[in-house]
Amino acid sequence: MKNFFEPKVITVVGVSKEKDKIGNVIFRNLKDKFKTIPVNMHEKQILGVKCYYSVSDIKEKVDMAVIAIPAEFVVPVIKECGEKGIKEVIIISSGFKESGNERLEYELFKVLENYKIKCIGPNCLGVFDAHSGLDCLFLPEEKLKRPEKGGISFISQSGALGVAMLDILSDGGYGFSKFISYGNGLNLNETDFLEYLSKDKNTKVICMYIEGIKDGKRFLEVASKIKKPIIAVKGGKFSKGVKAIMSHTGSLAGEYEVYKGAFKQVGIVLVDSLEEMFDTAKMFEKIENKNKKRIQIITNGGGYGVLMSDALEENKLELAEMNPENRSYLREKFPRAVSIGNPIDLLGDADAQRYKIALEVCEKDKNIDLIILILLLQTPGIDEKIIEVAKHVKKPVLVVSTGSHSKQIISKKLEKAGIPVYAYTDQLARALKNVL
Amino acid sequence: MKNFFEPKVITVVGVSKEKDKIGNVIFRNLKDKFKTIPVNMHEKQILGVKCYYSVSDIKEKVDMAVIAIPAEFVVPVIKECGEKGIKEVIIISSGFKESGNERLEYELFKVLENYKIKCIGPNCLGVFDAHSGLDCLFLPEEKLKRPEKGGISFISQSGALGVAMLDILSDGGYGFSKFISYGNGLNLNETDFLEYLSKDKNTKVICMYIEGIKDGKRFLEVASKIKKPIIAVKGGKFSKGVKAIMSHTGSLAGEYEVYKGAFKQVGIVLVDSLEEMFDTAKMFEKIENKNKKRIQIITNGGGYGVLMSDALEENKLELAEMNPENRSYLREKFPRAVSIGNPIDLLGDADAQRYKIALEVCEKDKNIDLIILILLLQTPGIDEKIIEVAKHVKKPVLVVSTGSHSKQIISKKLEKAGIPVYAYTDQLARALKNVL
Repeated sequence: MKNFFEPKVITVVGVSKEKDKIGNVIFRNLKDKFKTIPVNMHEKQILGVKCYYSVSDIKEKVDMAVIAIPAEFVVPVIKECGEKGIKEVIIISSGFKESGNERLEYELFKVLENYKIKCIGPNCLGVFDAHSGLDCLFLPEEKLKRPEKGGISFISQSGALGVAMLDILSDGGYGFSKFISYGNGLNLNETDFLEYLSKDKNTKVICMYIEGIKDGKRFLEVASKIKKPIIAVKGGKFSKGVKAIMSHTGSLAGEYEVYKGAFKQVGIVLVDSLEEMFDTAKMFEKIENKNKKRIQIITNGGGYGVLMSDALEENKLELAEMNPENRSYLREKFPRAVSIGNPIDLLGDADAQRYKIALEVCEKDKNIDLIILILLLQTPGIDEKIIEVAKHVKKPVLVVSTGSHSKQIISKKLEKAGIPVYAYTDQLARALKNVL
Repeated sequence: MKNFFEPKVITVVGVSKEKDKIGNVIFRNLKDKFKTIPVNMHEKQILGVKCYYSVSDIKEKVDMAVIAIPAEFVVPVIKECGEKGIKEVIIISSGFKESGNERLEYELFKVLENYKIKCIGPNCLGVFDAHSGLDCLFLPEEKLKRPEKGGISFISQSGALGVAMLDILSDGGYGFSKFISYGNGLNLNETDFLEYLSKDKNTKVICMYIEGIKDGKRFLEVASKIKKPIIAVKGGKFSKGVKAIMSHTGSLAGEYEVYKGAFKQVGIVLVDSLEEMFDTAKMFEKIENKNKKRIQIITNGGGYGVLMSDALEENKLELAEMNPENRSYLREKFPRAVSIGNPIDLLGDADAQRYKIALEVCEKDKNIDLIILILLLQTPGIDEKIIEVAKHVKKPVLVVSTGSHSKQIISKKLEKAGIPVYAYTDQLARALKNVL
């Protein structure tokens, strides 16, 4: 499957001269990073690159083909790919099972089987790999920012949903590895991608959006052997959802409760929303020792401390009890109004230096495993200095920080420094419960 | 209580010459909009305005005083205010009950009672009124953007939390009315503000962050008579939260379950998080007829449609069944792959025109009360034209739109046009459940 992500030579079939057409966008996304050969019956060259009449006409060895032509022409082109020895194809084209064209999809299936071709799609967006630079997404940068390199991978039955997520992730400091949109999942499905990503060195956490699972038994077997965290969102929990799915990717959703039980057994974290999936994923990247659970809260806003305590308790998470000696030490160091408990309330006039003193004590306190920093960026004392202070702490630090976009510059820098940031207390607590 | 929001003449006691000091910031925030008289023992004038040695020295009638001096000087200054006939004071100063100084707080209470002065605070941020321009918040614009005029008001025991929320609201198209941070709530508390806002013509929805309630019986009596929506978040649901509160505003939190039951009886919507509070508030502004519950989803991303159906079902909300004639009409109008059900999936290449056709049919369909538009802004067909299309629909329209900040420009414009926008399907569904 490696040729899907790190091919040496790619051909894109269906590269129009028109800038906005799918094939053209894909060709432009690929050509600077990979040797990419355009195929189009009507053109001699595209963007200065020699264009071929058909796949059969290409002389050199091709590792992977991306197909972006109308559904009715796909089968003959796949045959050509097979004859040429191409073993990996991504079929972007829609117009198969999902629009009632079961027969055409079956025909495609037979041809792929005949030539032993592995296929992503049809009816999909294909692949985006932040590390290799492979990018089939036919959306220009101004429509879709791409996230930076990192450890989160995302397998999605739904392309649109995946794209919206990539766009959101590009804003945060989330590091990304591979996105696979597999649409109808004709001969490669969720289980195959899960297995591949479990061995991919760049992938640390696997996220999945699943509507239906093709082969439940194999899926669970594969998942049960994977050590990396797997976080899944299930679309189609209810009957109405099932109806919507049938017309969308043409696969039948099982009962949600069945999924829930089975996923739990093999260690997949099944979450309720896309938001929770990524909130959880970025925390998995940070917290390695799942047995260290005692949490200390440090805040510069009293009300936020209260809500954070509430949210931890609600999710059955454990508040740390600081060593009394350390408490006495802080008592002496800080103004009288500062409250030294859990939460430690450093007050609205706290600056990075006050946070530093509290953090140093929490860092060495043996009763504390994990630190939640609440940073109200609206207060006068908080500026970028806090980033330096927070990033050198040797215990896991998680941040809650609420504010307008302009304020989020600090949040983004914190995330780049490896510290997960959440806008709301309950968002953080929910993710933490999934990780611990 | 009107003088807190629309005074003619204000005095600010404790206006330092230093630009970063609390009194100075407050004075600057007020002086261009109200006749504002600074008081400071050591200065003759501040920013070109004559400065008085004490409140007693001011000749003219003063409607309201803002006090920003150390706690130990507050009582004598309040006496002066009393002698001068000022009946409304905001005491920003902290250092009372919340830091163990019960005696000083009691002394202050007696003086206020003696002179029949109504007081917001102490230990608070005071008041922000988007309509009158009254702004005691001692945070400069670069630290805290102010939201625009509108119908949401927010009463908060915690100042910091209120500020973070104002900052977030300033980014959205949320319209805001009054923010009241009342800290220790010495002689005016949550119930008084609730009562006042229920009669305030600019306030359409009342949001509250409550840790403890001073007089539960009166609070519930007052709330039960209010017709406007009231949405509350309760800090201190659990024992640990209670501990945190005691050192924060010095009030004792009751049992969460008791609150829950009582609030429900008087029609207060008790929500789980700040996020849910504002998600709900902006929807209350839009949906007037609570009996119209049948919902139609229109999407340009199949997976999102599935998740939206799921979220509605999970919150026991009702999916509409479109009139069969209208369905046939759309079937003829749209490409074959478009799925006409609930959701209507307009596909990834949908543009504003395709949405318009679907919306016009839903608008006149008698089986549909409410429309949820899912807009994947990453797709090539979606641009600002959708705003014009959506805002002329005569039924309530709610939007789900996920994407990076740059994409949120469209979301913000939609909100300004009066259409609530949510980033995630479950966020919208949760709020809708609270409203219907």
